Amino acid sequence: MNEFELIKKYFIVNSARNDVLLGPGDDCALLQVPANSVLAVSTDTLVSGVHFFPDMDPNALGHKALAVNLSDLAAMGADPCWVSLALTLPEIDEAWVEQFCAGFFELAEYYNVALVGGDMTRGPLSICVTVQGTLPEGKGLLRSGAQAGDGIYVTGTLGDAALGLQQALGKVVVAAEHHDFVRNKFEHPHPRILVGQALRDIASSALDLSDGLAGDLMHIARASGVRAQLEIEQLPLSQAMQDSVSQEQAIALALTGGDDYELCFTVPEVHRGQLETALAHCGVTFTYIGRMLSGEPNVELLQAGQPYSLSEQSWDHFRS
Amino acid sequence: MNEFELIKKYFIVNSARNDVLLGPGDDCALLQVPANSVLAVSTDTLVSGVHFFPDMDPNALGHKALAVNLSDLAAMGADPCWVSLALTLPEIDEAWVEQFCAGFFELAEYYNVALVGGDMTRGPLSICVTVQGTLPEGKGLLRSGAQAGDGIYVTGTLGDAALGLQQALGKVVVAAEHHDFVRNKFEHPHPRILVGQALRDIASSALDLSDGLAGDLMHIARASGVRAQLEIEQLPLSQAMQDSVSQEQAIALALTGGDDYELCFTVPEVHRGQLETALAHCGVTFTYIGRMLSGEPNVELLQAGQPYSLSEQSWDHFRS
Repeated sequence: MNEFELIKKYFIVNSARNDVLLGPGDDCALLQVPANSVLAVSTDTLVSGVHFFPDMDPNALGHKALAVNLSDLAAMGADPCWVSLALTLPEIDEAWVEQFCAGFFELAEYYNVALVGGDMTRGPLSICVTVQGTLPEGKGLLRSGAQAGDGIYVTGTLGDAALGLQQALGKVVVAAEHHDFVRNKFEHPHPRILVGQALRDIASSALDLSDGLAGDLMHIARASGVRAQLEIEQLPLSQAMQDSVSQEQAIALALTGGDDYELCFTVPEVHRGQLETALAHCGVTFTYIGRMLSGEPNVELLQAGQPYSLSEQSWDHFRS
Repeated sequence: MNEFELIKKYFIVNSARNDVLLGPGDDCALLQVPANSVLAVSTDTLVSGVHFFPDMDPNALGHKALAVNLSDLAAMGADPCWVSLALTLPEIDEAWVEQFCAGFFELAEYYNVALVGGDMTRGPLSICVTVQGTLPEGKGLLRSGAQAGDGIYVTGTLGDAALGLQQALGKVVVAAEHHDFVRNKFEHPHPRILVGQALRDIASSALDLSDGLAGDLMHIARASGVRAQLEIEQLPLSQAMQDSVSQEQAIALALTGGDDYELCFTVPEVHRGQLETALAHCGVTFTYIGRMLSGEPNVELLQAGQPYSLSEQSWDHFRS
């Protein structure tokens, strides 16, 4: 089976979306953006050996390649619509492509996202995905909207994907009962699309956690010109995390572990009362972890009201 | 200089476009699509060693990576608007990035295309570009609109990029006076944006020539359900081509040489009279090369009214 046949068999999928005026197969896709909406666009590349292990299960890889991109739309509060996929493969391996597509399209169908184009190329394994969504005018959840006094929140629990990575690397032993959980958090992140949409009229800023809470929150602090103060005791830790590593290591993973793809967002005092109701239907927990204060952009850590810093020891454990 | 600094220095460019509501640096870009317009999207990846020589001049590579994508918008008749760039680099080489960006942004500015996002990743050199443009509703130049009786046209001259490649490989000697010409055709293709726009109300189908006329025209024949008949004598050949290879070899390069990025389009009899006027301001020649006929989708070659086929000899010369 050559590349054209492979594309035809696995990538030309009829979409249920009637805003796809012309799908894959021509020079461009033609798409209809609804009136009074703006377009949200994001691109992410996953490179073998950098972002994933070369032998990663292709089904999980297909899921993750789309999930990390949808996560950017979630962080903007957008409705996902369309995706382009550029797949670079060292060789034509139909079984691999079939599994990759199974993971990719399962997630795409779940969110009613149509594949509208892309290409397949020979070369070192990498995946470049561009997602597009729409958003009512003026409703985007920017990084720059946080103000002093806003509460800081995160969805789900933190650091579990990093724990899954540490386990895969043989650096941490995770009890058998938690294996599926950490593996799923690491390989099958769930973009928080519904949460992002529900936050449109409530949050003052948002982003998705890809590099670790401390660093990612710094982006909001800088873009908004505010100082973030986190309460270490509030960081939501999974049972798997608590059972697998020390408290100090758990905090280190929660603050600096990448690949969580949870949302971090800020909410003005006046909207706090609406939060519970707005997120009730999303099926995702959320936790208050601190507040924004005026001052030089920074991310401060407090434990029982005292400054906290990550010790070298908590780090060394995870370094190669 | 680390990756963040490099991105900030070279890729965060303020755009003159007021339809970029939010540029690079947040989770998504936010873009305003004009009323009564549809969105045209295309993605192309260039991989080192597959699509270009690893030591290709980075300025030319930056130009070409954007040009081949804009060429898809041209083939649809769209107005280019925005671009996302995912750059995967084996190492941080500021001089290389600076040159790449110089080539990329020179072309982007020429067509007033704003860079709205993307990423920079470590890994084997490759470039994934997604371009977006807009088009008045119902005006897209599809591959599927050709009808029996339509004339077939191409812009510019054919096969020159392939001639440039053959010269670079040392398989053809091109006279010194033509060196710049063939090198430019090979490294600095010009997307035929103005031609595509001018053809919106005239052409029945169009595509850009990336894999060679014979194969590319077959896409139109199949999508439209018609038979293409080409007159070999009509194929536009450059002086460089005529001076460098035999007539037979020139025809082989014109029919099968890739990377030309000229447009091939079909025009119904009733619109032929408008063609000259419509394309007059584009500064590009165009040539009638054949016609569409009813029948099984195919691309037929005629020379002086007789069937013509590419001989093995004309091929062997270029094979490795």
